[in-house]
Amino acid sequence: MAAPSPNDSPPAPAGKSIPRYELITLGDELLLGLTANSHLAWIGAQLGRRGVLLGRNVTITDEAPAIAAQFRESWARADVVITTGGLGPTCDDRTREVVAEILGQELVFDPEIMRAIEERFAKFNRPCTPNNRRQAFKFSRGEVLPNPNGTAPGLWAEQDGKVLVMLPGPPNELQPMFTDQVLPRLAQLGLVSDQEGYLQLRTAGVGESMLETRFQPVFARYPGLGVAYCAHQWQVDCRISSPDGRHPRATLQQIAAECAALLGDDFVCFGQDNLAKVAADLLRNSGRTLAVAESCTGGLLANSFTDICGASKFFMGGIVSYSNDSKTLLLDCPECLLSQHGAVSAECAVAMASGVAERLSADYGLAITGYAGPAAGHCCDDSAVGTIYIGLHSPLGDWSKKLVCPGARHPVKLRAVTAAIDWLRREVARELRRAAAPLAN
Amino acid sequence: MAAPSPNDSPPAPAGKSIPRYELITLGDELLLGLTANSHLAWIGAQLGRRGVLLGRNVTITDEAPAIAAQFRESWARADVVITTGGLGPTCDDRTREVVAEILGQELVFDPEIMRAIEERFAKFNRPCTPNNRRQAFKFSRGEVLPNPNGTAPGLWAEQDGKVLVMLPGPPNELQPMFTDQVLPRLAQLGLVSDQEGYLQLRTAGVGESMLETRFQPVFARYPGLGVAYCAHQWQVDCRISSPDGRHPRATLQQIAAECAALLGDDFVCFGQDNLAKVAADLLRNSGRTLAVAESCTGGLLANSFTDICGASKFFMGGIVSYSNDSKTLLLDCPECLLSQHGAVSAECAVAMASGVAERLSADYGLAITGYAGPAAGHCCDDSAVGTIYIGLHSPLGDWSKKLVCPGARHPVKLRAVTAAIDWLRREVARELRRAAAPLAN
Repeated sequence: MAAPSPNDSPPAPAGKSIPRYELITLGDELLLGLTANSHLAWIGAQLGRRGVLLGRNVTITDEAPAIAAQFRESWARADVVITTGGLGPTCDDRTREVVAEILGQELVFDPEIMRAIEERFAKFNRPCTPNNRRQAFKFSRGEVLPNPNGTAPGLWAEQDGKVLVMLPGPPNELQPMFTDQVLPRLAQLGLVSDQEGYLQLRTAGVGESMLETRFQPVFARYPGLGVAYCAHQWQVDCRISSPDGRHPRATLQQIAAECAALLGDDFVCFGQDNLAKVAADLLRNSGRTLAVAESCTGGLLANSFTDICGASKFFMGGIVSYSNDSKTLLLDCPECLLSQHGAVSAECAVAMASGVAERLSADYGLAITGYAGPAAGHCCDDSAVGTIYIGLHSPLGDWSKKLVCPGARHPVKLRAVTAAIDWLRREVARELRRAAAPLAN
Repeated sequence: MAAPSPNDSPPAPAGKSIPRYELITLGDELLLGLTANSHLAWIGAQLGRRGVLLGRNVTITDEAPAIAAQFRESWARADVVITTGGLGPTCDDRTREVVAEILGQELVFDPEIMRAIEERFAKFNRPCTPNNRRQAFKFSRGEVLPNPNGTAPGLWAEQDGKVLVMLPGPPNELQPMFTDQVLPRLAQLGLVSDQEGYLQLRTAGVGESMLETRFQPVFARYPGLGVAYCAHQWQVDCRISSPDGRHPRATLQQIAAECAALLGDDFVCFGQDNLAKVAADLLRNSGRTLAVAESCTGGLLANSFTDICGASKFFMGGIVSYSNDSKTLLLDCPECLLSQHGAVSAECAVAMASGVAERLSADYGLAITGYAGPAAGHCCDDSAVGTIYIGLHSPLGDWSKKLVCPGARHPVKLRAVTAAIDWLRREVARELRRAAAPLAN
């Protein structure tokens, strides 16, 4: 840590008052929609799991006056200010200079940083151009957060009873730096806690207004309860919290359990697991395996399962059958079935599901066939767009389901995959219940 | 349009001064990282393509005081304020009320909206609970933006020479409303133009600092040129603009063409197409077809191509071979090859690429095999994580490439897919050049 100077004082401990966090994400490319602002979701989740609700996220342009105005405002309001981006080697990277001036900090050249940058270029056999030198400056009263995955290091400063954290823009550089360096430092200063500030229930198959109507009688018994709903893709999340602290965590857990019991299979999980993760856990718990076949969703279904760590324990593989030929060749769909019912049909969905399960010796086969349609605003129009059939082969039998979800290509794919995985989740749960109580269900 | 009242005046025409846009995205779920803020990227891109650089995006909590403070500040600074979220039926949807009070607007019940909500519930055979009535209120001096895909309508108001647009949170509801209703209204008021305010070059395979070093001599000949760089996943984008208007669009195009020529195959495209779209266009131009096989990327490679509208024209299908058995069964990888070299090997990558091309009668076969590793911070550690082999079968021959990209599961998958598609892009371009000038290359 740098030697303390007269106007440096440690941040206020997180005693009674909750520290206020603000996140400033920099870059015209974010405002032009050329890059998604993944930092908000990622940093927000990291802080949320440590009891901190990020107070605000502001995305601004790369222009020096915009950076200066926003940084001044956020620094005045917040206890912790985190910035992302604008630390790189090129002419539009101005954050370091602008912030240093506002804080009255000098930027000093650090040969240690320069050596790390040069070593990195040498390792990848690339020449280190002179503009990289810009990244080797740090605050005179501050610290360096080394960047093991890139050239621009992060910067840390404590001043005016506040903390400033500056991180580079690329997520693969920022994320390990935040987890390994920033969070431990914030914990040491008492600025994060060790548990979430809320409890979340995830649900599927119930609309937002109906969910509130069903939960309301429970919530009414607990005055002062914080309640929030969030609808997304076939699902609604409900978060409960105790903003004034009158309901301890055990009470929140009891309320959440009561709500979950009200919903039956429409309850998905507590916390943040997605439907694929919940279905995967059920499959692993029952020792069952899965294979998938898909046409219009084109790999998105398989990808949802292979995003899960340890997927090879239950996931046997997938086939993206984008033509009739591939359905016959790879999935043994009979040609006569295809010519009689067409590739977008209940019959084909079932044949694909049982075909892929048999080919890959899986217990469950899940299949999607349909018309995903054009990308938003492009290409041809088709009245059949959004017509989807889902096929499910399971130890309890074979079924199909029809889904109509008109829209642009990507949302239709996402909706179809979500519906298919939710159906699988319910069926595996049903089989597990049957196994546990063979006569009761 | 509502009858004008004394303090309503039309917004200033977008003559000399550029209108300032601010976007307020509401929702604790965004700040907690439970939902990605897709509105910034989507609305930012829509405006960017119409010559508007969004001035700022602020994400705030659902609390009434936070909404009020932010709305007041943004309304004072901007010409157009767009809000998303907080218009739904539940207790945490407070935006409508808070904004109405600040603007001195009354909220009036609109039986027309209520009827549309009731019809929507009837159509889906769901009961319409009383809390839905909250969504049927509009500003007394303002208009309703109907929502064909959900219950909460949008609101539009012109006041104090400014425009307010309030939209519901779910992207599948917001996006068509923005395209079909909001943009035409903004165009009518002269608040958007009909072309982009910048030119973008996408590049692959060159680092950010090297790219600036190579472009600098060109840019130095054009004083006042606006230049910005953005690095992401194996690629760097460079945007050029003329902030003070001294360089007409034709000059920007000439500068961009000169830069592109400097780069050879490291130049990907002008504009916003991704690598898969560029590779797909090359395949379509040459009348070639593609099939893919993947293990560790688990469907993400196939999904990148099937996200492209009209993919069935060139994409024959894909196989997610998540086990050795499936590599033998579905891709004809010889068992002896797998036992001698292992599934993560150059030999296996080539066998997968040629196997899938043959199975699906495709001209090109692209394959990925490797260790994607655990999800961030979870599961086992493995020194082999991030070791990836890419196999390519093409009319010019069969090759493999090794890639080492340590990191968390999702970034490794993304990096592997990006590298594979970039390689395919270069090879198809090479074949096209050979076909055009068989003796020259």
